[in-house]
Amino acid sequence: MTSPQRAPGGFPVVGIIGGGQLARMCQPPAINLSLTLSVLSEAPDAAAALVVPSAPVGSHLDVEEVLAFARDCDVVTFDHEHVPDEVLQALVDAGIPVHPKPEALLFAQDKLAMRGRLTALGVPCPAWARVQDEGELAAFGDLHGWPVILKTPRGGYDGKGVRVIGAASEAADWFAHGDALLAEERVPFSRELAVLVARSPSSQAAVWPIVQTVQTNGICTEVLAPAPELDPSLAAAASQAALQLAGALDITGVFAVEIFEIPGEGGGSPSYVVNELAMRPHNSGHWTMDGSVTSQFEQHLRAVLDLPLGAVTPRAPWTVMGNVLGGDYDELYPTYKHLLARDPGLKVHLYGKGVRPGRKIGHVNVYGDDLDALRERARHAADYFEGTVTE
Amino acid sequence: MTSPQRAPGGFPVVGIIGGGQLARMCQPPAINLSLTLSVLSEAPDAAAALVVPSAPVGSHLDVEEVLAFARDCDVVTFDHEHVPDEVLQALVDAGIPVHPKPEALLFAQDKLAMRGRLTALGVPCPAWARVQDEGELAAFGDLHGWPVILKTPRGGYDGKGVRVIGAASEAADWFAHGDALLAEERVPFSRELAVLVARSPSSQAAVWPIVQTVQTNGICTEVLAPAPELDPSLAAAASQAALQLAGALDITGVFAVEIFEIPGEGGGSPSYVVNELAMRPHNSGHWTMDGSVTSQFEQHLRAVLDLPLGAVTPRAPWTVMGNVLGGDYDELYPTYKHLLARDPGLKVHLYGKGVRPGRKIGHVNVYGDDLDALRERARHAADYFEGTVTE
Repeated sequence: MTSPQRAPGGFPVVGIIGGGQLARMCQPPAINLSLTLSVLSEAPDAAAALVVPSAPVGSHLDVEEVLAFARDCDVVTFDHEHVPDEVLQALVDAGIPVHPKPEALLFAQDKLAMRGRLTALGVPCPAWARVQDEGELAAFGDLHGWPVILKTPRGGYDGKGVRVIGAASEAADWFAHGDALLAEERVPFSRELAVLVARSPSSQAAVWPIVQTVQTNGICTEVLAPAPELDPSLAAAASQAALQLAGALDITGVFAVEIFEIPGEGGGSPSYVVNELAMRPHNSGHWTMDGSVTSQFEQHLRAVLDLPLGAVTPRAPWTVMGNVLGGDYDELYPTYKHLLARDPGLKVHLYGKGVRPGRKIGHVNVYGDDLDALRERARHAADYFEGTVTE
Repeated sequence: MTSPQRAPGGFPVVGIIGGGQLARMCQPPAINLSLTLSVLSEAPDAAAALVVPSAPVGSHLDVEEVLAFARDCDVVTFDHEHVPDEVLQALVDAGIPVHPKPEALLFAQDKLAMRGRLTALGVPCPAWARVQDEGELAAFGDLHGWPVILKTPRGGYDGKGVRVIGAASEAADWFAHGDALLAEERVPFSRELAVLVARSPSSQAAVWPIVQTVQTNGICTEVLAPAPELDPSLAAAASQAALQLAGALDITGVFAVEIFEIPGEGGGSPSYVVNELAMRPHNSGHWTMDGSVTSQFEQHLRAVLDLPLGAVTPRAPWTVMGNVLGGDYDELYPTYKHLLARDPGLKVHLYGKGVRPGRKIGHVNVYGDDLDALRERARHAADYFEGTVTE
């Protein structure tokens, strides 16, 4: 393993475990700031390995490989949340700064731990319970109503970590694994929002404007920044809660709080509950690459290095992000020629990944004054990449 | 030499000869667009080699090295204008698309050829002559007035390519080399401007708003975008002339036309003459990285690949660029921590180069509504990096 080349002048090396698109999108701001990235990649052609000179192949599950990788880094951070506790602890024991820290990362890795901590802090959550068997699940459903949302605290079974359960017996196969599960009431939400926050080890923190996320078949397909017609008191309360969480959990780096907006009864003010935490740059923050003075990727690098944070001011009244999902057609280059010609203001961000149906392979951003027109432009570009529109 | 890795989906490899900051600054837009760069670098630690995975070391003067490099590229372009004719011709003969083409590049490499062609096209130039000896220079100076600006058509002597000459005898040492020189009248200009243009092989072209460039000791230190209080008819004429030049010379890629603004007599409208041509992304266009919908580096990649060009709309009423020059202090990382804390909206672009006094090592961009405040912010940041202010 050759050491990453530093820029002269005392500039550090930031190690990122995982070579996906989040690591890849850290490279442009790293170049601007003269920081060197080193990426522990899953494969020689991982999304980040295509664009970062130092991208050794190795496994995030292997303590020795991770330690060898991290020896050249001034700080280690993550492309994903799947690094096991023992690997994180070995980094800490070796004296390597890790951000976010393992104690904080736990609350993004373990949904039962997250729910317990958020409830203790008074942050609004759906009604929830730790359920060990069908009997406990039935009791929860009878109290809070059916269907119930059932989640695996970590990972999932057969690639699924969330199910909608109409009766306790439907969960028999999951309980057969013997682990406790998380039961949550199904919240009657009107839409999904996300709060994106950055916090540094020195406790400087910054919150971007709250955005609306639109999901299609369980995948985020569109982000509207800022969330249209958001109740100001809800915005203030949710931003405040995200900052409170950041401090209480000692989160470092960029993180996202996914929330459900719940309509007020009888025309009253809406309220919210927290759905999930993600402790890394997040899909709901991709709009910041073109729509904010400081992008989430630049901010994440600044935060994990304990550099002063950048301004989170929006650069346009509206920015819309459209996720590009893979379709049946894998020759993207001719496709995007057409899109660049159709829309000279379209900002395309592709991840260097092979096309597979439904796979996130990129996103587009557009910004301006007319939200409806922006949504149409972003939607068209995403659909055209996917092949569901052809002109 | 290992081949550069392409992104799947039919995406091309853009070869850049020269590993300086211009090649380096192409990497962020290349990442977004899923293009692969390959850079023929002067050294393993060249500015671009620090950030581009494929950056073989080789000489732009060596035909075989350049051909071997170019075999993996779908198009070849340049970080600088110093590639010799025979190397350019060898690339063309090998069937490799080269942009800009050698026939166009000549007019950026040879100032006598440039003046001849511009004059033939009717583009405003200072009075000029090809002078072979002191007698011809004296005749020119007596006709157009002293002092005279004397230039070497290509390169320079002892690192200098331009001199201000008060009497023909002062140029004896340059004439001793035996080559023809370019004599130009000294123009009574009020300020320097630059027109930045992109043109593709399909003849699509786009012009950014004209900017003002501020030189200090012969080095560009500040760019104001757009040029304040620019006469609209001058702006239209100069933009039109730049587009005309682009077509007539069949220029491809991004190029800059440096012009002198000449005050109108008796309060009349100002006029202009062309000073220099640069056939590549240019210092006067660094503001576009944060101030334009499409940066000059993204546009250059789009142009040389014959992709549709992007919008050149400014993103803010004013953008100011300040060049960062090296000072006595070479530990830039602690320096920029202070600057990031002082100005959360400052966009820093460093080139990964070692500090030498007077060397261009980076630039900063700021944007907003108040031009004077922006100039102060950019000036402060550049001075602080250089070490001439300390707080």
